[in-house]
Amino acid sequence: MERESIPQQLLTDCHQLGHYPASSLLLNRNAALPWFILVPETPLADFLDLPDPQQQRVLAECTSVSAFIKRELGYDKVNFAGLGNVVSAMHLHIIGRRVGDACWPQPVWGNLPDGGVYSTGQLQDWQARLVDVTGLVPAAL
Amino acid sequence: MERESIPQQLLTDCHQLGHYPASSLLLNRNAALPWFILVPETPLADFLDLPDPQQQRVLAECTSVSAFIKRELGYDKVNFAGLGNVVSAMHLHIIGRRVGDACWPQPVWGNLPDGGVYSTGQLQDWQARLVDVTGLVPAAL
Repeated sequence: MERESIPQQLLTDCHQLGHYPASSLLLNRNAALPWFILVPETPLADFLDLPDPQQQRVLAECTSVSAFIKRELGYDKVNFAGLGNVVSAMHLHIIGRRVGDACWPQPVWGNLPDGGVYSTGQLQDWQARLVDVTGLVPAAL
Repeated sequence: MERESIPQQLLTDCHQLGHYPASSLLLNRNAALPWFILVPETPLADFLDLPDPQQQRVLAECTSVSAFIKRELGYDKVNFAGLGNVVSAMHLHIIGRRVGDACWPQPVWGNLPDGGVYSTGQLQDWQARLVDVTGLVPAAL
């Protein structure tokens, strides 16, 4: 998926890690929590309006990212949401959470303090592991 | 699904409208927005961990409720989320939103002002329409 298809606000807020068959995978630049954003390739705004088989493919990609957060990054909980009130293009939040995390138990939107930035090394590490574990096609970091 | 399976906090915050094959359907008592909560019958906490075919059934039920919000209640946007940081049992938020609504564009959690209560008549009306349109099995209101 070309970068031009991803809303500028999301590119401002996120690193672009790569793509899957049905979506692109972003990572919010705030390193306080592993806050991934999956951007399905669709003109539709709401996940629940996606037709099959596209909805199935997107859901499978969300499931892979969630499993990565739990098994590879060691989080025991994942928040999952399709909101899109500010950036209207469909994008799905898949966020690792745990008791005592940076804004626990609040949702991240409007509540997550600044946790600093990801180093290039950490981005490269997560990207390489996403390639191995989930089949991500990597983007240039 | 027996009422005893639904967490007490959700019953405190919501009307119980009825059930589908794989879940119960609740409606948040705050009438500021149509804030439905689907409670799948599962011991798992996170929607993305649900195995098929259960995940498919639950997703289909979410899709029905979302379509009801749009076509029957006239909302052009739906927020969809599985969080579960406060109430750990799996429950999926399906919320009608529109530009200029009671907390637009913020997410509802922590931001929705008190919009009063639903009248019995309005609950009965929505319940009857959910029965007709989505196949809800109604609970006693």
